[in-house]
Amino acid sequence: MSTVTDARATGPGETGAGASALGQLIDELGDRVILDPAALDVLRTDRSGWWSEGGALALVEARSVEDVQAVLRIASAHRVPVVPRGAGTGLAGGATATPGAIVLSVREMDRILEIALDDEIAVVEPGVINAALGEALEPHGYAFSPDPASKAISTIGGNIATNAGGLMCAKYGVTREAVLGLDVVLPDGSLLSTGRRTVKGVTGYDLTALFTGSEGTLGVIVGATVRIRPIPPGQLVTIAAFFSDLTAAAAACAAVTASRVRPAVMELMDALTVAAVTRYLGTPERAPGAAFVLVQTDGAGAAEEGDAIARVLREAGAFSVEQSADPVVAAELLAFRRSMHPALEVLGEVLIEDICVPRSALPAMFAEIERIGAAYGLDIPTVAHAGDGNLHPNFVVPPAIVGVPGGEVVGGAPDIVWQAADELFESARRLGGTLTGEHGVGVLKRRWLEGELGESGLELQRRLKAVFDPLGIMNPGKVY
Amino acid sequence: MSTVTDARATGPGETGAGASALGQLIDELGDRVILDPAALDVLRTDRSGWWSEGGALALVEARSVEDVQAVLRIASAHRVPVVPRGAGTGLAGGATATPGAIVLSVREMDRILEIALDDEIAVVEPGVINAALGEALEPHGYAFSPDPASKAISTIGGNIATNAGGLMCAKYGVTREAVLGLDVVLPDGSLLSTGRRTVKGVTGYDLTALFTGSEGTLGVIVGATVRIRPIPPGQLVTIAAFFSDLTAAAAACAAVTASRVRPAVMELMDALTVAAVTRYLGTPERAPGAAFVLVQTDGAGAAEEGDAIARVLREAGAFSVEQSADPVVAAELLAFRRSMHPALEVLGEVLIEDICVPRSALPAMFAEIERIGAAYGLDIPTVAHAGDGNLHPNFVVPPAIVGVPGGEVVGGAPDIVWQAADELFESARRLGGTLTGEHGVGVLKRRWLEGELGESGLELQRRLKAVFDPLGIMNPGKVY
Repeated sequence: MSTVTDARATGPGETGAGASALGQLIDELGDRVILDPAALDVLRTDRSGWWSEGGALALVEARSVEDVQAVLRIASAHRVPVVPRGAGTGLAGGATATPGAIVLSVREMDRILEIALDDEIAVVEPGVINAALGEALEPHGYAFSPDPASKAISTIGGNIATNAGGLMCAKYGVTREAVLGLDVVLPDGSLLSTGRRTVKGVTGYDLTALFTGSEGTLGVIVGATVRIRPIPPGQLVTIAAFFSDLTAAAAACAAVTASRVRPAVMELMDALTVAAVTRYLGTPERAPGAAFVLVQTDGAGAAEEGDAIARVLREAGAFSVEQSADPVVAAELLAFRRSMHPALEVLGEVLIEDICVPRSALPAMFAEIERIGAAYGLDIPTVAHAGDGNLHPNFVVPPAIVGVPGGEVVGGAPDIVWQAADELFESARRLGGTLTGEHGVGVLKRRWLEGELGESGLELQRRLKAVFDPLGIMNPGKVY
Repeated sequence: MSTVTDARATGPGETGAGASALGQLIDELGDRVILDPAALDVLRTDRSGWWSEGGALALVEARSVEDVQAVLRIASAHRVPVVPRGAGTGLAGGATATPGAIVLSVREMDRILEIALDDEIAVVEPGVINAALGEALEPHGYAFSPDPASKAISTIGGNIATNAGGLMCAKYGVTREAVLGLDVVLPDGSLLSTGRRTVKGVTGYDLTALFTGSEGTLGVIVGATVRIRPIPPGQLVTIAAFFSDLTAAAAACAAVTASRVRPAVMELMDALTVAAVTRYLGTPERAPGAAFVLVQTDGAGAAEEGDAIARVLREAGAFSVEQSADPVVAAELLAFRRSMHPALEVLGEVLIEDICVPRSALPAMFAEIERIGAAYGLDIPTVAHAGDGNLHPNFVVPPAIVGVPGGEVVGGAPDIVWQAADELFESARRLGGTLTGEHGVGVLKRRWLEGELGESGLELQRRLKAVFDPLGIMNPGKVY
């Protein structure tokens, strides 16, 4: 959304505590402390489109665990809020600067410290880009499973902080399943190590899982021991199918699941996304209302599984099924799915939602999205990770609507989108689902949190937070 | 170990609080309250061999969530400890009755409430036996992944409370990865629901993971939504190989891992276990010092993967490799591994340990076990889940040692075993491992907990416990 200057913005050093903290930060951390207004201004947002109403006190670009410890000690001493941040690619506003906070970036802590193939683990600093670890592993025949769409630009620390998902979760699990241990700096500056280098281990409560997905509200992740997995021998088979309508495509995905073959990837694009991508790529027009299914199989049984899935898709009524193990052809087939975001971005501002429903509720959820779109006069093109019931409805707001008088611009989206989102989350919950499958709560979904967790559940979570962060300095205003 | 009568045993109603609580329990729960001394006495132990020094105040056999809530409300009101218990098959003493406590059994809450194949979930009460769920799923072609060796006798609630592992964890994950949501009665009697029915979801802290493995110290699990998985189409291939020594066998397992094929099962038995089983089964003598490796592959690529693994094992020096996809032959091959426990039990009292090390440290850990066994004059036959570095060294204490004057009988094992175990855990930790991979801490490993978590880590865990259990009534004396 548009950048606006907001009168409520809080400048550095506005408060006495802020000024004292800032002085101490500069004393101890020197040129790692950034005060340039332009550099601070961009921290008010991330990839969600949300802009916070005020600027940070300072940005600290930490280069070591000790830097992070120093920042948190100072912040605790002066009761100044801290916003941990990686690459700023979040989709829920979880790492956006809040007025007067210290934004603590670990982006420069980007060393891969160890790759132990025989133990199938890697030890990384939090600022390592997800894809960079993948590139380091690939020549050895290993991979890091979590594969959020942002993998080329997002950090592993951020992936852990949001428990990021991706396309291959149904087969290879979410980020939590890939994290064995963490080093975390707590708000008082102390360093806590959780978990271990072993695959199994049940000594004490699972703090590793507690920090995974905690969105910077408990401490700052400064190191991670993650599982890596062998890339299975065998080819990767890609299957692309078009259906005359979404209902048939959704039924086809259900039929694949029922066939008990577990594809590595199974993506479902609705008619609006198919139409947008067709226009964007200039590919031949499909039948009006056509929906798209993309499937990949891997491992020793990939060819056989690919054949079985292609057969299921044909039997389920696909009017076009292409299948290939050739990487060049596969890339062409994948391009249709990969072009979705650029295709939507030319249509307006895109706000990506992230609901997840039980797999069997996918058709019902698609129907709800269509109903809500019609009710609010909004196009809500939607893609689903059909293997795990995670849908990304995209609110595409034409430029004409953004910034209209009375529209809420700070906050990232006009009111009409918030109202439609409200109905969307209500529908997802009614179908047994959740308001966020893999992006996190951040600021964008905070108002719906109590509806999902319940009053006592939310209170319990707040008490857990207080165990780690009694002063409440960790990312205040996010999630809780 | 032997049952002994202990003078320190606390009878029901010994204290005023106990008597008042007991009266109220009987008023509210009637015949679900069991006071029979013999029934209470057996609760002092589980499958660990440990016997607690005193008996329970009462056993309550809960039949509903409301029963559990009533017990916890009464226990909180009177500050009486509660020990949650399932089938009593634990190996760390976590569910053993402590003097004056209410043992709250959920064993009779054993209904499978729902199986939703299209959502790949099941909803169960905590007392459902692991294998019973498997039997209900198998005709549909689905399985429940967690497969502790106790699956025929242990409950899913107990599996969750200990985050149980099993033979197939390296490929299919531990219990935590199979649990999507929990219903938990908190110490104040309130009911908390965590998690969801969806595969993904990141709303709030991961309380489901926090309760998984918490060993009854936070609340009582009264319901679980678990993932089920399709049994992959294709055959199951079983490979059994003998090596002339343990070093060669361990190297062979490492070579299988390095080949990037992920077997469903990979078990390694050392020379002592091979010798014991050979004698027990009366099968032909193997080479002195021979070690055994058992591997299973499954899924569409099972045959191809099985061939590849058999090749690796032969190249690594196996002097005998048998391979079969015939279920009858497979059962014969598996029998060698499955006979280990009965074969050891004829030799003396068996205390099963449960260390886990990074996979690459398996040979070093085996060497440590041999050294410790020699130093203490103990046989420590050991089996390892070689796919994930989890070893089960078995202290086999001949009948002559158990109960010797001065030997510690209450507590389950003679001092010499504790001393050897102490060295064992020290070695595991030095190699980057943990003192328990899948059995839990319970009472048996409590004394080593701080060594692994550190003083501040342990203190943090205690503060977390207090959030849920401020009165400290949940399973006191276990873990923390």
